[in-house]
Amino acid sequence: MLPQWVIEKKRDGGELTDEEIRWFIKGFTTGEIADYQMSAMAMAIYLKGMSPREIATLTDAMMRSGDLVDTSSIKTAKVDKHSTGGIGDKVSLPLAPLVACCGVSVPMISGRGLGITGGTLDKLESIPGYRTNLTDKEFVDVVRRCGCSIIGQTGQLAPADKKLYALRDVTGTVPSIPLITASIMSKKMAEGIDALVLDVKWGKGAFMQTQKDARALAWSMVRVGKKMGKGIAALITDMNQPLGHTAGNALEVVESIETLQGRGPKDLTDLTVAFAVEMLVLAKKTKNRVAADKELRELLQNGKAFAKFREMAKLQGADLAAIDDPSRLPKAKIIREVPAPKSGYIAKADAEMIGRACLILGSGRTRTEQAVDFAVGASGIRKVADQVKKGQPLIVLHANQEDKLTEALKLISKAFVISSHRVKPGKLIYERIS
Amino acid sequence: MLPQWVIEKKRDGGELTDEEIRWFIKGFTTGEIADYQMSAMAMAIYLKGMSPREIATLTDAMMRSGDLVDTSSIKTAKVDKHSTGGIGDKVSLPLAPLVACCGVSVPMISGRGLGITGGTLDKLESIPGYRTNLTDKEFVDVVRRCGCSIIGQTGQLAPADKKLYALRDVTGTVPSIPLITASIMSKKMAEGIDALVLDVKWGKGAFMQTQKDARALAWSMVRVGKKMGKGIAALITDMNQPLGHTAGNALEVVESIETLQGRGPKDLTDLTVAFAVEMLVLAKKTKNRVAADKELRELLQNGKAFAKFREMAKLQGADLAAIDDPSRLPKAKIIREVPAPKSGYIAKADAEMIGRACLILGSGRTRTEQAVDFAVGASGIRKVADQVKKGQPLIVLHANQEDKLTEALKLISKAFVISSHRVKPGKLIYERIS
Repeated sequence: MLPQWVIEKKRDGGELTDEEIRWFIKGFTTGEIADYQMSAMAMAIYLKGMSPREIATLTDAMMRSGDLVDTSSIKTAKVDKHSTGGIGDKVSLPLAPLVACCGVSVPMISGRGLGITGGTLDKLESIPGYRTNLTDKEFVDVVRRCGCSIIGQTGQLAPADKKLYALRDVTGTVPSIPLITASIMSKKMAEGIDALVLDVKWGKGAFMQTQKDARALAWSMVRVGKKMGKGIAALITDMNQPLGHTAGNALEVVESIETLQGRGPKDLTDLTVAFAVEMLVLAKKTKNRVAADKELRELLQNGKAFAKFREMAKLQGADLAAIDDPSRLPKAKIIREVPAPKSGYIAKADAEMIGRACLILGSGRTRTEQAVDFAVGASGIRKVADQVKKGQPLIVLHANQEDKLTEALKLISKAFVISSHRVKPGKLIYERIS
Repeated sequence: MLPQWVIEKKRDGGELTDEEIRWFIKGFTTGEIADYQMSAMAMAIYLKGMSPREIATLTDAMMRSGDLVDTSSIKTAKVDKHSTGGIGDKVSLPLAPLVACCGVSVPMISGRGLGITGGTLDKLESIPGYRTNLTDKEFVDVVRRCGCSIIGQTGQLAPADKKLYALRDVTGTVPSIPLITASIMSKKMAEGIDALVLDVKWGKGAFMQTQKDARALAWSMVRVGKKMGKGIAALITDMNQPLGHTAGNALEVVESIETLQGRGPKDLTDLTVAFAVEMLVLAKKTKNRVAADKELRELLQNGKAFAKFREMAKLQGADLAAIDDPSRLPKAKIIREVPAPKSGYIAKADAEMIGRACLILGSGRTRTEQAVDFAVGASGIRKVADQVKKGQPLIVLHANQEDKLTEALKLISKAFVISSHRVKPGKLIYERIS
């Protein structure tokens, strides 16, 4: 077998055997199959697609390219959530402790932000002391002790995915459903979980620009999860406007804490609870979604979810003073309100524009090796359907450099549309796929 | 501009601008654009195609990636021939001196064999002393002195093609008409010629398996030649059976010498003369094809073409004793006739099978760095329509190792089909495209 023979088969629209896929990924991981061969294969997959069986095998091969987290010592059900990402998407922070409160373990391995999309790790690292680089052993230990842990991907978790993702990024092969599916699912399945819920976002600020594309990706991932014998469900959710009222790392931690204390924004709270319900159902903790919803909201109200977050943060080294008094979190030097140019109703709060403004301010990165500024970003983001009076703030920008603020303000001037007529609120959850 | 943007444009079926193509090839040549980006691009080109304008620009960019041979000191018309290759295709050896006899210069830069396809350089190097690695200056000097020269590609001739070809070979992107066109034409156009004739072969022993594919490639190359302002014509020719009666380097030199002395096989002589006529027409030496055909055959008969070959060979260092007495050329130790299993007419002499048998004997290479055995191969190959009696030889194999001979004989046993009915001779030239 030569690598080019397998590439040629896919190039000509053939269906690869399990053996061919495993051999190719193994060779790529060890370096026997060169990057230039993998990139030609990635382009062939991009243009010719893969069958559900091929995608499941690719996922499994990539998962097995490295270590699998040994979670056998955790005796309760282990359930995780993955989001395809968006602006202001801080759901993981309140969600993991909330679900852990119900006796379900949440071993969550998260990523960093790239481009306009924020990352859970960057958010958590804005809390002084919080360590995201636990060893596998420490990770499992934290989950065993408090029911949840959120860390970063270790070098040996799905290394084939790490290599392939870097390659796809520079070869025009990123937006391929088979490759995205295998990339996400190989990492998640290596966590040693029993079930997974997926937040597949679509819209201006999401990777998937249309609901149709989001559905296709969700179905692909759900199929792979089932083939691998895991409980799985996906929600198709909105990312046309940012989630919650904040975007930017420390600012989102503040909003997450507020949500954990029962006083978060409605959309963020609703979405967190919706995912928590899915996770409890998959963990077989409940069949009654209505009752679960009610209980989960109580856990946010009665301080238990917040207490769980404190517990997890403490076990991962966080300075609890900054969690108890979020004014101790990193703060920007310049805080600038952007006033509404006229009175009316918010018809659009463009997630992409707001995301790009935050990126310019320094809250995100354009290359993986860049550092982020935890303090900067946006707060007080008005939502679609909100009524505003002329001069009232549409958004508050937090900046550390005047020139970057000037640039960000230019984008923000195009981000909001105000209508003189009443506007219907945007939909939050479009569909459930399982 | 980022490489992935240009790759994405082609991936999505877009037409690249001249600027994008030139920038990409320049970056690839200098190494700023990585091999893995070029291979993804090659796969996108393979699957999405290129417009005639894109192909012409790609050819020009690849041609300009290195040195152009300065043939300005050659004052007569400069015309070359290129063949897509086949089994027993030794046309270049008699053709270059034959055309040079008519006052047309033939600066020919040729390649080596790969796979079952033979290469002109390997054939010439089987003549003791013949140097194919002349400098550009020596090359032009030989053309000026005797009217023709056949050498190998220098490192600085179209280096982008050299790099890209190596990459295509291992990434499943070889049989792409835009890429083949640019590869062939960039090298040929860098020779500093006025006109070019193309031998586009199709059949069992050719790169193009169908006449339709051969036509498509011929049209693509003819269009590029015209766009670059060169005289150009292509003949679609047969490669279902080998050309002439021999395959293998020294054996083909012997047959070439016989052809130059007016006693070569009919098909090889006819094809050589047909290409010579095309070259004389493109060089504006004649408009009368019938008269040209007659004159050219005279030059083979009266010893002038052979004298010209001797002259070229001598200027390139060859030992004339081996040309004057071909029994001095490398000879194999084992010579084995393969008898016809029954009497009848040859219905098939499978070029691919015979090519593979010669490759096993050592006349060719499967990897570019391999050495070839000049002595081995096949002679006395019977042609389609030939009448044979049971026990008469169908082919004579020349081998240096018994085990390889045994292996080759197995293939040969499947190469010939003998019919009890009369068979029509195979067609030699199917079509002329210009």
